Amino acid sequence: MSNENIRQKTVYFAAGWFSPKQTAAYDQVMAAIKQNKTIDDKNSYVPLEHQYKGLRVDEHPELLADKEWQTATFNGDCVGIKSSDLFLCTYLPDEEDIGCGVELGLAKALGKYIVIVIPDEDYGKPINLMSWGAADTVIKVSELADFDFNKPYYNFYECEVY
Amino acid sequence: MSNENIRQKTVYFAAGWFSPKQTAAYDQVMAAIKQNKTIDDKNSYVPLEHQYKGLRVDEHPELLADKEWQTATFNGDCVGIKSSDLFLCTYLPDEEDIGCGVELGLAKALGKYIVIVIPDEDYGKPINLMSWGAADTVIKVSELADFDFNKPYYNFYECEVY
Amino acid sequence: MSNENIRQKTVYFAAGWFSPKQTAAYDQVMAAIKQNKTIDDKNSYVPLEHQYKGLRVDEHPELLADKEWQTATFNGDCVGIKSSDLFLCTYLPDEEDIGCGVELGLAKALGKYIVIVIPDEDYGKPINLMSWGAADTVIKVSELADFDFNKPYYNFYECEVY
Amino acid sequence: MSNENIRQKTVYFAAGWFSPKQTAAYDQVMAAIKQNKTIDDKNSYVPLEHQYKGLRVDEHPELLADKEWQTATFNGDCVGIKSSDLFLCTYLPDEEDIGCGVELGLAKALGKYIVIVIPDEDYGKPINLMSWGAADTVIKVSELADFDFNKPYYNFYECEVY
Amino acid sequence: MSNENIRQKTVYFAAGWFSPKQTAAYDQVMAAIKQNKTIDDKNSYVPLEHQYKGLRVDEHPELLADKEWQTATFNGDCVGIKSSDLFLCTYLPDEEDIGCGVELGLAKALGKYIVIVIPDEDYGKPINLMSWGAADTVIKVSELADFDFNKPYYNFYECEVY
Amino acid sequence: MSNENIRQKTVYFAAGWFSPKQTAAYDQVMAAIKQNKTIDDKNSYVPLEHQYKGLRVDEHPELLADKEWQTATFNGDCVGIKSSDLFLCTYLPDEEDIGCGVELGLAKALGKYIVIVIPDEDYGKPINLMSWGAADTVIKVSELADFDFNKPYYNFYECEVY
Repeated sequence: MSNENIRQKTVYFAAGWFSPKQTAAYDQVMAAIKQNKTIDDKNSYVPLEHQYKGLRVDEHPELLADKEWQTATFNGDCVGIKSSDLFLCTYLPDEEDIGCGVELGLAKALGKYIVIVIPDEDYGKPINLMSWGAADTVIKVSELADFDFNKPYYNFYECEVY
Repeated sequence: MSNENIRQKTVYFAAGWFSPKQTAAYDQVMAAIKQNKTIDDKNSYVPLEHQYKGLRVDEHPELLADKEWQTATFNGDCVGIKSSDLFLCTYLPDEEDIGCGVELGLAKALGKYIVIVIPDEDYGKPINLMSWGAADTVIKVSELADFDFNKPYYNFYECEVY
Repeated sequence: MSNENIRQKTVYFAAGWFSPKQTAAYDQVMAAIKQNKTIDDKNSYVPLEHQYKGLRVDEHPELLADKEWQTATFNGDCVGIKSSDLFLCTYLPDEEDIGCGVELGLAKALGKYIVIVIPDEDYGKPINLMSWGAADTVIKVSELADFDFNKPYYNFYECEVY
Repeated sequence: MSNENIRQKTVYFAAGWFSPKQTAAYDQVMAAIKQNKTIDDKNSYVPLEHQYKGLRVDEHPELLADKEWQTATFNGDCVGIKSSDLFLCTYLPDEEDIGCGVELGLAKALGKYIVIVIPDEDYGKPINLMSWGAADTVIKVSELADFDFNKPYYNFYECEVY
Repeated sequence: MSNENIRQKTVYFAAGWFSPKQTAAYDQVMAAIKQNKTIDDKNSYVPLEHQYKGLRVDEHPELLADKEWQTATFNGDCVGIKSSDLFLCTYLPDEEDIGCGVELGLAKALGKYIVIVIPDEDYGKPINLMSWGAADTVIKVSELADFDFNKPYYNFYECEVY
Repeated sequence: MSNENIRQKTVYFAAGWFSPKQTAAYDQVMAAIKQNKTIDDKNSYVPLEHQYKGLRVDEHPELLADKEWQTATFNGDCVGIKSSDLFLCTYLPDEEDIGCGVELGLAKALGKYIVIVIPDEDYGKPINLMSWGAADTVIKVSELADFDFNKPYYNFYECEVY
C-alpha cells in the first residue's frame, strides 16, 4: 500500500533523558517513531528540540535558575502537549521521571489519547499506580514501529502497581 | 479571634510514602495541616486513609496486581482531587515521586489551586521543571501551620530546575 | 453532635419526572436529601424549581417549542451543574432518562463528584454501560439519608451492564 | 473535483443498537457516512467494532457483569470520543438511548463539535431538552451523505422539547 | 434572620480601573458586595489588592515591562479565578475592557458561574456579542446588594449586541 | 518543495471589524493567511462568513436584539473555536476588542494553541496584561505568510503591559 494515503498523527514525545538507560530508551523509541507510518514525526513535538531562543542549557547553565527561561520552557512544553494529536511517553519502570508524571496528568485532564511505551525487557514490571491509571494503552518498544495510531484503543497494563 | 468564623477549605493531600525521608515529611506536613485554622482537615482527602473496601495492601499484597483494586484506587484518588477545594503536595527535591507528578498534572488541568510544601532544609533545592511550572505557590513546611489558604496567590519557587 | 459544625455541600438534583415510578423515586430521594446532615438542601439546585421567568409549562405548553425558553432552561441546568458542589442522580434501571444521561456526561467531564441513587428494590439491576462508567459511587435510596458527602469515595456498581 | 484534495475528519459514531428501529437507523447512517467525502470512515471510531480483547459479548454474556470488561469497554469509548475530530449521534426521538445521552454530555464538555442525525420521517419530533441543548447541529439522514463536515456551524433543532 | 446561618460564597472581582467612570463603577460595585450577605467579601479575590511581592506599579513603572512581574501577575489572576466560587464582572457598555473579556472567557471555559453587573443608567445598552454569550446572569448595580448568590440562575441580557 | 506534502492546519480567525484601522488589519492578515502554506484557509473558520441562516445584519439590524439570532451567532463562534486546530487573533494594541478578549479566554481554557498577530508598525506597543498572558506566540503581520504553524512554540511578547 502506498504511504501517501495513510492518515498521520502528530505526537508529543515525553521522556526522561537524565540517565544512560533513559537516553538509550529515548533513542530506541525515537527510531521506532520515525518508522511508524501513522506518525508524522516531522511535525511532532520533541521537547529537547525546542530550546527557548535557541539557547543551549549546557552552554548556559545559569538559565536553569532564570525565571524567564523556566517559564518559557514550561509553557513551550504545554504548547506541545495541547497542539499534538496524541501523547506518547517513553517509560522506564525502574527509573520513573516526575516530569513525565506531570505531563501525563496534564495530557489526561486535557483529553489526549495517552500511549506509554516500555522497553521489552522491562515490560510487565511494576509502575506507579497513578501512571497506570493515566495511560490508555501500554505497549512494548518492539510494538511501536507497527502500532496503528489511527486505531486507538484502551487496554490494561498487566502488572503490579505500587 | 474565634475559630468558628474562619472559612475552612478541604485539601487533597498528595505525598510519597515509600522512603523514611518521605514518611518523615509526610508526618510533619500532616501535623502542620491539623494546626492550620483555614483547613478543614477532618473533611480533607488523604489517599492512604481510603483503602478500597477496607482491604489492607500489606495484608493482601496480591491486590497490587488486581485490576479491580487498581482501578478503584486510581478512581478514588481522582475523586479526592476533584472533590477537594485545593491541592497540597508534600515534595522532596531529592526524592521526587512520580505519583505526585501525575496528580500535579491532573490538578493543574482541572483548575485546582496548587500548593507545594518542601521541608525547610530542602527549600531552594532544584526540582523538575514540570513540577515547578505546575505549582501556584511553593512554601516551607514551617510556613504551613499559619498559611492562609483563604488568600491564595501565585509565587515563583526560586531555584534551579532540571 | 451538634449540626452546626457539620460541613454541608450543595447538590445538583438530576432525575426524570415523566412516569409515576420516576415521580415516586424523585419524592423518596428528595425526602432523604432533606434529612441528610451533610447536604445544604436549601441552597441546592433542583431543576424543576427553576422555571424561566416563573412561567409554568403546564399553563404555557407553547413554551416547549420556544427557542428563548428552551435555551434559557438548558443554560439554567448547566448553571446548576457547574455551581453545585456535587452531582446526584436519581436512577431507575428500568426507566432510564436520557436527560439524566446528558447531565451525567456533562458533570463527569466538568470534574464533579457523581453519586447515583437507585431505589432499594431496583438496586443491582442492569444499567447502561456509559452511566455505569460515569458514576463515582452508586448507593441505595435507603443509604442516602445517612450518606456522608464529606467522605467521597469510588465504588463499582455490582451489576450487569448492557 | 478530485477527492484527494478534500480534508477528511474522523468521527465518533454514537448510536443505540437495542431495537430493530435503532438497528435500521444505525445501518442507514453508517451507509451515508461511507459516502460522505469529508469523513475518513476508515479511521473513525465505531464502538461496536471495538471488542475488548476481541471477546464477543454474545458468546460470553458473563462479561457484562465483569468489572475488567466493563471498565475497559467504558474507557475504550472515552478513548474514541477524545481521539475523534467530531461527534456524530444517530438519534431516534421515539427511542432515546441513555448511553448516547452520557456520550453527548461528555463530548459537549470536552469541546467536540456535535452533530445529531435523525431519520427523515422522525425529524421535527420532540426530543429531550438536554440532548437539544448539547447538539450543535441537527440534520436529517438524507442530508448526511453530502454534509460538509469541514464547514461546521450552529443551528437550532426546530421542535418541541420535553 | 441571623447572618450566621447564611451560606457565603467567594467571588473573583473583575473590573477595569482605567477611567474615572470605570473607577466610579468599581467603587459602587465593591460597596454593594460588602453589603451582600451571601458573599464572603473578606475571602474574595480582588486583583488590585494582589500586588506581586507587595511592589506598587505606580512607584515602580518599570515592572510593567518586566517578564517576572508580568507572568506572576497574570498567573495570580488565574489563581483568583480558579480559587473563587463564582465570577463577578463590573461592566460598562460604553467602556468595555479587554482584560475583563479574557477573564470572562477563561471563567466560562473553566465552568464558573458568571454574573455581569452594569450600572443602572447603562443597563440595557448594547454590549459585545461574546460578552453577552459568556454571561449567565446580567443584573443592575442596584440589584447587587440583595442578590442571592446561593440561587444562581440563567437569564438573557435584553439588549442589542454588536 | 511540493505543497501537497505539507500538513495544513485550520484556524479560527478572531478580529475586530468595527473601525477602519481594524478592517485594514483584518484584510492584511487574511491575505497573509491565504499565502501561508501551513494553513488550510479554505476550511478555516471566519466568523464574518457565518451569518445565521444567511441573514445579513446590515439588511436586518433588528437581528442584533433578537435572542434567537444572538444565541445562534454566539454558539456558532464557539463551534468555530472548538472545531479549529488553532486560534489566531488579529490584534491592535491601540484598539483592543473585547470580543477578541472573550474568545482568547475561551480558547486558552479549551487548550488551543494561541497566536496573536500585530501590525508591524504597532508591534511592541503595550497591550492588556490578560491578553499578554493568554497568548502563546505573538508575531508581526509581516511574519505571518511564512510562519510555520506545524512548529508551534512559546514566546514572550516584549512590551509593557497595563
